[in-house]
Amino acid sequence: MNDKKLMNLAADNIRILAASMVEKAKSGHPGGAMGGADFINVLFSEFLIYDPENPTWEGRDRFFLDPGHMSPMLYSALALQGRFTLDELKDFRQWGSPTPGHPERDITRGIENTSGPLGQGHAYGAGAAIAEKYLETKLGRTMMQHTIYIYISDGGVQEEISQGVGRLAGALGLDNIIMFYDSNDIQLSTECGVVTAEDTAAKYEAWGWKVLTIDGNDADEIRQALHQAQQEQQRPTLIIGNTVMGKGALRADGSSFEHHIGTHGAPLGGEAYVKTILHIGGNPDNPFVIFPEVEQLYARRREELKEIVAHRHAAEQAWASENPDRAAQMREWFSGKAPQVDWSALTQKADAATRVGSAACLGVLAEQVENMICSSADLSNSDRTDGFLNKTHDIRRSDFSGAFLQAGVSELTMACMCIGMYLHGGIIPACGTFFVFSDYMKPAIRMAALMRVPIKFVWSHDAFRVGEDGPTHQPVEQEAQIRLMEKLQNHQGEDSVRVFRPADVNETTVCWQMAMENMSTPTALILSRQNVKNLHPETDYTQARRGAYIVAGSDERFDVILLASGSEVATLEAGAELLRKDHLRVRIVSVPSEGLFRRQSKEYQEQILPRGAKIFGLTAGLPVTLESLVGSNGRVFGLEHFGHSAPFKVLDEKFGFTAENVYAQVKAFLAED
Amino acid sequence: MNDKKLMNLAADNIRILAASMVEKAKSGHPGGAMGGADFINVLFSEFLIYDPENPTWEGRDRFFLDPGHMSPMLYSALALQGRFTLDELKDFRQWGSPTPGHPERDITRGIENTSGPLGQGHAYGAGAAIAEKYLETKLGRTMMQHTIYIYISDGGVQEEISQGVGRLAGALGLDNIIMFYDSNDIQLSTECGVVTAEDTAAKYEAWGWKVLTIDGNDADEIRQALHQAQQEQQRPTLIIGNTVMGKGALRADGSSFEHHIGTHGAPLGGEAYVKTILHIGGNPDNPFVIFPEVEQLYARRREELKEIVAHRHAAEQAWASENPDRAAQMREWFSGKAPQVDWSALTQKADAATRVGSAACLGVLAEQVENMICSSADLSNSDRTDGFLNKTHDIRRSDFSGAFLQAGVSELTMACMCIGMYLHGGIIPACGTFFVFSDYMKPAIRMAALMRVPIKFVWSHDAFRVGEDGPTHQPVEQEAQIRLMEKLQNHQGEDSVRVFRPADVNETTVCWQMAMENMSTPTALILSRQNVKNLHPETDYTQARRGAYIVAGSDERFDVILLASGSEVATLEAGAELLRKDHLRVRIVSVPSEGLFRRQSKEYQEQILPRGAKIFGLTAGLPVTLESLVGSNGRVFGLEHFGHSAPFKVLDEKFGFTAENVYAQVKAFLAED
Repeated sequence: MNDKKLMNLAADNIRILAASMVEKAKSGHPGGAMGGADFINVLFSEFLIYDPENPTWEGRDRFFLDPGHMSPMLYSALALQGRFTLDELKDFRQWGSPTPGHPERDITRGIENTSGPLGQGHAYGAGAAIAEKYLETKLGRTMMQHTIYIYISDGGVQEEISQGVGRLAGALGLDNIIMFYDSNDIQLSTECGVVTAEDTAAKYEAWGWKVLTIDGNDADEIRQALHQAQQEQQRPTLIIGNTVMGKGALRADGSSFEHHIGTHGAPLGGEAYVKTILHIGGNPDNPFVIFPEVEQLYARRREELKEIVAHRHAAEQAWASENPDRAAQMREWFSGKAPQVDWSALTQKADAATRVGSAACLGVLAEQVENMICSSADLSNSDRTDGFLNKTHDIRRSDFSGAFLQAGVSELTMACMCIGMYLHGGIIPACGTFFVFSDYMKPAIRMAALMRVPIKFVWSHDAFRVGEDGPTHQPVEQEAQIRLMEKLQNHQGEDSVRVFRPADVNETTVCWQMAMENMSTPTALILSRQNVKNLHPETDYTQARRGAYIVAGSDERFDVILLASGSEVATLEAGAELLRKDHLRVRIVSVPSEGLFRRQSKEYQEQILPRGAKIFGLTAGLPVTLESLVGSNGRVFGLEHFGHSAPFKVLDEKFGFTAENVYAQVKAFLAED
Repeated sequence: MNDKKLMNLAADNIRILAASMVEKAKSGHPGGAMGGADFINVLFSEFLIYDPENPTWEGRDRFFLDPGHMSPMLYSALALQGRFTLDELKDFRQWGSPTPGHPERDITRGIENTSGPLGQGHAYGAGAAIAEKYLETKLGRTMMQHTIYIYISDGGVQEEISQGVGRLAGALGLDNIIMFYDSNDIQLSTECGVVTAEDTAAKYEAWGWKVLTIDGNDADEIRQALHQAQQEQQRPTLIIGNTVMGKGALRADGSSFEHHIGTHGAPLGGEAYVKTILHIGGNPDNPFVIFPEVEQLYARRREELKEIVAHRHAAEQAWASENPDRAAQMREWFSGKAPQVDWSALTQKADAATRVGSAACLGVLAEQVENMICSSADLSNSDRTDGFLNKTHDIRRSDFSGAFLQAGVSELTMACMCIGMYLHGGIIPACGTFFVFSDYMKPAIRMAALMRVPIKFVWSHDAFRVGEDGPTHQPVEQEAQIRLMEKLQNHQGEDSVRVFRPADVNETTVCWQMAMENMSTPTALILSRQNVKNLHPETDYTQARRGAYIVAGSDERFDVILLASGSEVATLEAGAELLRKDHLRVRIVSVPSEGLFRRQSKEYQEQILPRGAKIFGLTAGLPVTLESLVGSNGRVFGLEHFGHSAPFKVLDEKFGFTAENVYAQVKAFLAED
C-alpha cells in the first residue's frame, strides 16, 4: 500500500469510527469530524511528539482542540494512538464514560483542554505558547522545544475572541504555534458565506501570521504545510485547510451528503449511515475496528516516538545533571504544588485601598515566584497589577524573560490565555481588570472552574465607590454573580471558584496568601478602588482563613451582629461606634469568603453567627449577596439599583453607606422586635 | 479668519472645554478628547444632519460614540451645538448632572447611546445601520437616507467584539456606516505597539471595508475623507485618523505633553493644565467660554441645517401624503409603543419543548410584527428562532427585506447589534442562543438594562437536561445569575431585566405576550431543549402574568407547596401524584418570574405563598435560585455541581430530578417537623 493510500485509509478509519460513535450515541456531530480526519491523522502519525510511556512529559508537543463538538475525531485519533479502547468509543456521550460529548481535560489520554465554547480552546493554545517561551528563557531550549498545535474551525475563527488571539500571537511572534483552520464553509445554521465575506488569510497576515492555504483533505499537502510551518522562526503559522464537511458521507439514496449542514449536528442516520460506512470502507455491522494497516502505521509511529523521546530524554538528563538547581526548580514548577512564599518582607501601608494592598502582595510574588505570570487588560496602572509589573517587565516579541503580559483591551482573551499558560504546565497565572468587566470573563471563569485551573483573578474597582466613572463602571450585581461559582461545585466536590473580597490591606495579604496556596480551583480577589481604613488594630487577620471571623474590638456579649465583606466592614465599624454610644453591644464579622466559611465546622459557623442572633448585613452589592449569611432573623442593607456618576463620598451619602445610616438602619431593625 | 484657522480654533475650543471639565472634576480623561476634537468639530459643523428644532427626528444622522471615557469631547462639541450649557459642562461627573463620567443615552441632547465598555458603542452603530437599511426597504429612501457615524478608539478596535462588527458590517455591505478610528497609539497602560502589531487597514479591508488613512488632526483631510466616504455605495468606510493624544498639551515646565499616557486617564493637573490652556488659546482663569468665531461657525451650521431639514421635511410630508398607511405605521414603529399582536391564530403542540413553543410564538410575530428583527448566533435551528426565520428570510448584503439576522458565532456582537437596532428607533429586536452562552452576552445585557432597551433574549437549552453535550453546555448557575438583573433596578426603579422561565408551551405563549408588551426593559426567555409535559389542563395560564400562580389541580387546602419554574414544574406534578397517594395535599406553584411576582400586592403574594407554609422548591439550577421564594421554612432541592455528559433521562435519575425523588425529598422535609 503506497503512502497516500495508507493515509487515506487511516483517515477513513477515523471517519468510520467518528460517524459510528455519533450513530451509536444517537447524538453528536459527525460532519466536522469526518472533514478533519485527514489532518489529525497526518499530525498524529507523523508530527506530534509525545512519550507513549509518559503522557505527562513536560517536553511533549501540545494539541489544543478548539471545536469541542469535534470530539469524535479526537477520540478516534487517540484510539489509534492507543489511548482509548474501542469500547470506550462505543460508550461515547454516556454516563461515566471517558468520552463525553465535549472533551474534558485528561492529559494522560492526550486531551490537553476541555472544549466546547468555541474560540476558547485556541486561546488556551496561545497561552500555552507563551508559557513555553517564558519557560524556555528560564530552562533553556533543551527542556522547552515543543510545538503548540492548535485545531480550529469556522466557528472559532468567527468568535470575537479569535481577534484577541490573532493580535497577540502575531504581536508576540509566537512561532511555536501551528494552527490548523478546518475551513469547511459550513456552520451550524448556514453556510459561512451568509455571515462572512472575510479574507481570513489576509486578516491573519494583518496580525503578523504566516498563512498557508491547502487542500485540508490531502495528506501530502498537509504534510508539506506542516513541514513549512515548522521552519518558520518569526511568526505563528495558520494553515488554512479547505476541507469537506462530512467527507465521504452519502445519503440514504446513495447521493453525496458531503458539504451539507445536515451532517453538522446530528447522526447521519439509518440508511445514510450504512451507505456512508460502506462507501468509506467500513462494515456497518461491525464498524468499531482499527484496520490492520492503520494499526501498523500507528505502531510504527510509536517506535519512532520511542527513539525520538529517548534522544530527548538523554539530552534532558544531561541538562539536569549540569543544572541541578534549575532541574529541581522545574520539577517544582510542574508539580502543581503551591509555591513557597516568604511573606515576611511584605509591608502594607495602613488605610490604603485594597487594590494597593494587592499591589504590595504582587510585588512580593514577582520577586519570589519565578514561574508566575501576571497580566492585565490594559489597566495595570489602575487595577494595580503594576505591583507585579514594576518588579519585572512586559513580555515582548523578542524578549520572553519578563513575567508580565500586557494583554490589551481584551478581557476574555486574557483570561483564556492565562488558563492556557496553566494548562501548558509550569506556570501560575494571574490576571487583572476592573470588577465590572469580570462580566466579559465569565465564559472563561466557568471553564477554568470546570478544569480546576488555579488562576488568580484580580478585580479592582469593586463597587459604586468607583465614583465618577458612573454606572457603566460600577459593579453592583457582580459580587453576587461571581459568588454563584462559589456555590457551584466542580466534579471533585470543591467550590468551583474561591472568592475573596478583603476588608482592608491586611486582610488582602491573607487572601493573597490563600490564593497562592489554592492550587485546585480559580481564586478571585475583589478589591476596592478607594482607600479603606484598617480594621481594629488588634484584629487577628489569620482568622480570615476561616472565611468569616470576628473583628477585634467586638463586644463579648452582643445585641447585634454587623456583617459585611470588603470596604463595608470599615463602614460598619464606624457605625458601631455610634451604636455603642447608645449602649448597644456590637459584634462585627468580616466575611471575605462565604464559601470558605461554609466549609468550616458547624460549630465554628455557629460560634461566629449563632442561630437566633440578630444579624445586620451591609453590602455595596445587591442585598442577596449577604442574604443567606444573615438568615431569616436578619436584615441586609444593600444597593438595589445601578450606580451614578459622582464622587464616591457623595454616593456614600446618597446611597446610605455611612456610619450614620448604619446606625439608623440597625436601630430600626432592632426596634422591629 | 480663513477656514483652516477657524476650524483649528473651534477644535481648540473643544480641547479647552474638555481639559477644563476634567480639571474641574479632578477626574476624567482629557488626552483622548483633545486628540479627537478636530474630527468631531468637522463632523458636527459640516456633516452631521439633524433637526435643531426636533432632536428626535427619525431621519437624523446618528452619531455613536464608542469610547465613553471621551465624554468631555462629546459634551463640549454638543455644547457648541447648543445642547449643553457651559454650566452643565462645569458640572461634569457630579451628582445629578447631565454630564456624567460616561455618557448616558439622551437623544434630545444628541447622545444616541450609553457608552463605557469599549467596543459596544460601535456595535450599536452597526446595528443601527442594519435597522436603517431594513426600514428603508419598508419606508423608502425619502424617509431613511441618513448616515450612521461612529467614533471608535484604539481600545474599541482592540476589543474582541470589533471582529464581529467588522465581519458583519463588511459581509452585509453596510455602506451607511462611516466610522472614524481615532488612532493615537496610546492605551491606558501602554503605547499600543506593546500589545499589537496589526495592520488595521488591512484587517478591515479583509472584512470588506473601504479604508482611508488620514491625519486625524487636520480639518482638511478629515473633510475630504468624509466626502469620499459619503460617495461609497458598497462598503462601510473606516477612516483611520492618526491623531495625537493630548493634542496641544504641555507639561508644567512648558515641554510637550502630547502623545503621552499621562494624559489618558487623569487631569492634566495644576501648572500643566494652566500652560496647556494658555498654549491652545484659552484663559485658565475663565476657561469655560465659547469663542465668538466658533459660536458663529455653529450658528451658521444651524442655519444650514434648518434649510437642509426643511427640504427633507417637505419631501417626507409629500411621501406621507402619498403613503398614509405606511406613514401611520412608521409613526407606530417609532412611538416606542408595544405592537398589537393577534395571538388567536397561535396553536401550540402539547407536551413539546418550550423552545418549540417559543418557535410557534415567533412564527406569529414574524407574520404580524413587521418591524421586528430576530437574530441568532448560528443556532437558529437549535434555539428555534427558526420559527421566525421560516416566515421571513435572512438579511443579505443585497437584500435587506428579510427580518432575520444570521449573526454567526458571536453572541456579544449579536446582542450589541440588536441593541443598536433599537437605539436607532423603529425596530423591536430579539436574539437567540444557548442559555449557557448568555455568559458571553452579560456585558451587553447590562448595558441594555441600563439603557432600557426592550430587546428579547431567547435562550434555549436551559439546564442539565441538555444531556449529552455535557457540562460545557449545561447551564447551572445561569438562571440565578440572570435573575440578579431582575433584582437590580434601573434608574426608573423598574426591575432592570424581566426574566421568564416558562413551565410548558402554553405558559411560553403568555411569557412571549408579556415580552412583547414590555417596552421598557429587556426581557429574557429561558427555554427547555427537551419536551415538557403540559401542566394540568385546567390551568389558567393568564395567571402567569402575576409572576407566580397556582397550577390547576392543586388541593384547596394543602400540607405542602411545591414550587418551581420551567420544566421542573412538570416534575413536581409527577411527584405530587405520588405524594397524594400518601394522602398528602399539595399545592403546585409555577414561578416563571420571581421579579414580577415581587411586584404584585402583598396580599397576592401571601395568597400564593402564605407565610408559615411549608414550601419545597425544585430547580435544575443552584438552590439559591429559589431560596428567597421558599423562605426560612422552606427547602430547595437543586443542582449544586456542574452537569455531566449523558442522555438527560439518565441525568434525571442520577441527579434526582424524578417524581420518585420529589416524593422522597418532600416526605423527608415534612418529617423534619
